[in-house]
Amino acid sequence: MEINGVYIEDTFAEAFPIWVSRVLITAATKRLAKIAATEATGFGCSVIMCPAEAGIEKYVPPTKTPDGRPGFIIEICHPKKSELEKQLLERLGQCVLTAPTTAVFDAMGEDAEEHVKVGFKLKFFGDGYEKKDKLGDRTVYRIPIMGGEFIVEDKFGIKKGVAGGNFFIMADSNMTALVAAEAAVNAIRSVEKVITPFPGGIVASGSKVGASNPKYKFMTATTNHKMCPTLRDVVEDSEVPEDVNGVYEIVIDGVDEESVKKAMKVGILAATTVKGVKKITAGNYGGKLGKYQIKLRELFE
Amino acid sequence: MEINGVYIEDTFAEAFPIWVSRVLITAATKRLAKIAATEATGFGCSVIMCPAEAGIEKYVPPTKTPDGRPGFIIEICHPKKSELEKQLLERLGQCVLTAPTTAVFDAMGEDAEEHVKVGFKLKFFGDGYEKKDKLGDRTVYRIPIMGGEFIVEDKFGIKKGVAGGNFFIMADSNMTALVAAEAAVNAIRSVEKVITPFPGGIVASGSKVGASNPKYKFMTATTNHKMCPTLRDVVEDSEVPEDVNGVYEIVIDGVDEESVKKAMKVGILAATTVKGVKKITAGNYGGKLGKYQIKLRELFE
Amino acid sequence: MEINGVYIEDTFAEAFPIWVSRVLITAATKRLAKIAATEATGFGCSVIMCPAEAGIEKYVPPTKTPDGRPGFIIEICHPKKSELEKQLLERLGQCVLTAPTTAVFDAMGEDAEEHVKVGFKLKFFGDGYEKKDKLGDRTVYRIPIMGGEFIVEDKFGIKKGVAGGNFFIMADSNMTALVAAEAAVNAIRSVEKVITPFPGGIVASGSKVGASNPKYKFMTATTNHKMCPTLRDVVEDSEVPEDVNGVYEIVIDGVDEESVKKAMKVGILAATTVKGVKKITAGNYGGKLGKYQIKLRELFE
Amino acid sequence: MEINGVYIEDTFAEAFPIWVSRVLITAATKRLAKIAATEATGFGCSVIMCPAEAGIEKYVPPTKTPDGRPGFIIEICHPKKSELEKQLLERLGQCVLTAPTTAVFDAMGEDAEEHVKVGFKLKFFGDGYEKKDKLGDRTVYRIPIMGGEFIVEDKFGIKKGVAGGNFFIMADSNMTALVAAEAAVNAIRSVEKVITPFPGGIVASGSKVGASNPKYKFMTATTNHKMCPTLRDVVEDSEVPEDVNGVYEIVIDGVDEESVKKAMKVGILAATTVKGVKKITAGNYGGKLGKYQIKLRELFE
Repeated sequence: MEINGVYIEDTFAEAFPIWVSRVLITAATKRLAKIAATEATGFGCSVIMCPAEAGIEKYVPPTKTPDGRPGFIIEICHPKKSELEKQLLERLGQCVLTAPTTAVFDAMGEDAEEHVKVGFKLKFFGDGYEKKDKLGDRTVYRIPIMGGEFIVEDKFGIKKGVAGGNFFIMADSNMTALVAAEAAVNAIRSVEKVITPFPGGIVASGSKVGASNPKYKFMTATTNHKMCPTLRDVVEDSEVPEDVNGVYEIVIDGVDEESVKKAMKVGILAATTVKGVKKITAGNYGGKLGKYQIKLRELFE
Repeated sequence: MEINGVYIEDTFAEAFPIWVSRVLITAATKRLAKIAATEATGFGCSVIMCPAEAGIEKYVPPTKTPDGRPGFIIEICHPKKSELEKQLLERLGQCVLTAPTTAVFDAMGEDAEEHVKVGFKLKFFGDGYEKKDKLGDRTVYRIPIMGGEFIVEDKFGIKKGVAGGNFFIMADSNMTALVAAEAAVNAIRSVEKVITPFPGGIVASGSKVGASNPKYKFMTATTNHKMCPTLRDVVEDSEVPEDVNGVYEIVIDGVDEESVKKAMKVGILAATTVKGVKKITAGNYGGKLGKYQIKLRELFE
Repeated sequence: MEINGVYIEDTFAEAFPIWVSRVLITAATKRLAKIAATEATGFGCSVIMCPAEAGIEKYVPPTKTPDGRPGFIIEICHPKKSELEKQLLERLGQCVLTAPTTAVFDAMGEDAEEHVKVGFKLKFFGDGYEKKDKLGDRTVYRIPIMGGEFIVEDKFGIKKGVAGGNFFIMADSNMTALVAAEAAVNAIRSVEKVITPFPGGIVASGSKVGASNPKYKFMTATTNHKMCPTLRDVVEDSEVPEDVNGVYEIVIDGVDEESVKKAMKVGILAATTVKGVKKITAGNYGGKLGKYQIKLRELFE
Repeated sequence: MEINGVYIEDTFAEAFPIWVSRVLITAATKRLAKIAATEATGFGCSVIMCPAEAGIEKYVPPTKTPDGRPGFIIEICHPKKSELEKQLLERLGQCVLTAPTTAVFDAMGEDAEEHVKVGFKLKFFGDGYEKKDKLGDRTVYRIPIMGGEFIVEDKFGIKKGVAGGNFFIMADSNMTALVAAEAAVNAIRSVEKVITPFPGGIVASGSKVGASNPKYKFMTATTNHKMCPTLRDVVEDSEVPEDVNGVYEIVIDGVDEESVKKAMKVGILAATTVKGVKKITAGNYGGKLGKYQIKLRELFE
């Protein structure tokens, strides 16, 4: 199968369950909301070594938020429910409560499978001066701070979502692949309920499980040598085509499989608009590890 | 003492020792370097609940970097040396190694008191395909990745620096105080060897040790009720003047006390240029807890 | 009438007819599209001394553009039809054709009252090497350039729109008024078919027709002294209330009156969410000059 | 000659005299200063069809400005002195005076050859309420506006500078050339007294004088067909090497020849750090038109 002249490999992305939260951060201005959202989702690429997977999902204009102010929806994800609750407390408590003019609301809404009492716990910061209140249908706490009042919703919905949706972009030059990856991320940002947790949404250093080098057996993950252009003539099992000199991966986490699929579809389409992209493929473990198998070609049927 | 008509309180900021690292992240373009630096320093406000204190110190143009590419110097700090090394491994390994086109170099240079073998450990990601090399005087590893090659310096210098340099900006309105805080952060960004680790460099929710509410004794920190404008007429020990309706704090970490002092000085000066700022003060624990006491008025003598 | 505790004056904004064009600029990435859109709409605040009124209306994701790439819709406006065509030629020819990876499409669509042959004229830059082509239903020219190929649509729709929709935000401090103005602009950006042509969407220096100073009779416009907080106690006809220390104006141009009204409504609402805003009013010439009279209170009925 | 493996052609950039102004715009925050500087320098690529050539030169931190606030230095250029004065009046009067919290100072300083009375003329906007004052050594006017007070210096220095310093980046793919061009612009931004007036600093559509197509003789400039990769196999006089698929030009204006040379040098160096760049060349008219001939190879001797 080809799209815009780019070969789509007949393979699948292998993805995994993960607990997902979806949080709306509002502030006096869009820029102030973004500062808080960026800090709260930083150091959040992969739970291999980061304490969570996190990212900004989308901007919400003032006309669509509970308090009439601009906001950003972020997602914070972790395989363990207890760790997700801890991350929510820490990231909202340290990176949003401290950020000028912010308020925090649940954005999982009716998709929630369970709830965690994040606002209920953060309210203790108020030292008894906080007030329980209603904002529309929402139960919130109003906590007095130096910068006025911090509003946080009582409970936040969480659900079992999907981690590790992915595809790889292979192109004639490293920079072609990189720009195509950025185009893919641009497109994915128009899809609801998904994030691309890596820096700028892009993975430059794909990994494989374990190590092939016998001296490095202590490593749980090492470079995906089959996908490294500079190793094409060095390793025997390279999967980098002759005309490819750059490879980037897009990793997608989301609230549900449908959203992740939609994100993969629009991301791949956008990548193919950049001239010089040669091939789109995806990462899997032979179907042995993950619950979800998202076949690239079926996305376009 | 008054500066530009703003009252400078006769008090001091109480600061603490912390282990500091100083790292240069370069990339193909300034924007790509900033993406990596932002991700690597996120979720890094205060070690109360964040795994490190971290921030972007300054931009370095291509003419001044080891590889002739644009870069940003970040600082990552932790009270414990072992935790700092762990944070460096995790943040550089997950947030920079994965970011497109990046390289990472030591920026502590001759200020270093000790070194941690971060590059030496990250190199194992190369699965044996990595190469040890020299770049100028620096020992680096070249690790093959999908996006080409990731270069990381062998060792990174660390030293005992200073955490918690601070001052408070009090103004006629909340927004005056906020804009003055942003002006202060703008000024501090021109000072070398310091960071302002909170979101946008600003703290909206200052805290005190423990709780005054007897039911909340389990809390290690709660809102600094004396500094909350909305509690001025509620609490008996308010320190918010009658004409003040907004208070923000700037917190500064740095490589040494001199740099933190310089940052406080230029930050306070910048804050006083915003009309409506009434008073500058600072946070301390009566001098009982911190090693450093930085007196505000002495900064201007 | 009060909204969120802010007094809405019983007055109207007086607006004028203007010729409007609506142009979609796409590029390989969102960022590249924004660079072109920003350059093309610069020096475009007011036709009093700028060659056009221009601004970015909204972002369009790759899934919604003719070429599957991210884009921004801009509007360029001028009272004279011939000048508008000239501005389109100059701004698209100099600021978009020269910008990396861009393409330009009509975004006025069925709202158009007339068409100008901008693409037809720009194509001559191709020196005969350009090709006429179809992209979906659109007639386009493909012009070879150093950076590949520049695609421009044959004709662009224009129509008689509305210029000078406006409201004023008055607040306790200058910075409160400014942040409220930014919040208003954030909200207006979610409304289709309108722009806020001034820097950052905000006017800091409102003007009146002519001069009151007899020595300055040669001036066609001077500072609106009635609205200057620093002149409250200097001039006899000040309209700045005692509790107001900052005033900013939002000016809105748009494709039609309905869109301008919607923008004014959401902008005013957003401004009232910022604590310290005291009053919203609007600018008019007693109804003597403009075709449109948009009454503030009717927006909320 | 090769630099970092990139061939530097033995040719020269042909540049021209132009009148240059250098203006410092300060504001309450760096971001507000940038908004004004961006608006004031928009629609300012080339005087072929733009009313001026303009760009942001550099950021100046609060510690280095006359009013202790952050600022940006911009340059506005025009071949005719009278037009430059007109552009200064229009751009500062419409795009900076209207922008929140700004002030404007001369930044040409002792380099000035002549002065234009821009502040003296803008002051009439004050309708007699303005005040003449001193700020340090500078004569300024304080003009009351809705957003407080606009400060503008009396006179601005201008001088005969250099327009059209340039070089071309040729690379294996379009995107490699584009990223290298961005790296070059990043580097040039660290050089004082120069700007890169095109969108993002980059020219995607180089032009030649006149047209080669006899039907297009009415055109004063058309696409530089010799440099278009898509025309390599179409035209007989192509100068695009076989291994090149993307070409971008960097155009530099500056206060003096030395600064333009320095900018070309650091820009070329930065471009060569991007893998896949093949060749650097420059644009000239055989030395017949321009006053300045800047030889590429001499930059590196």
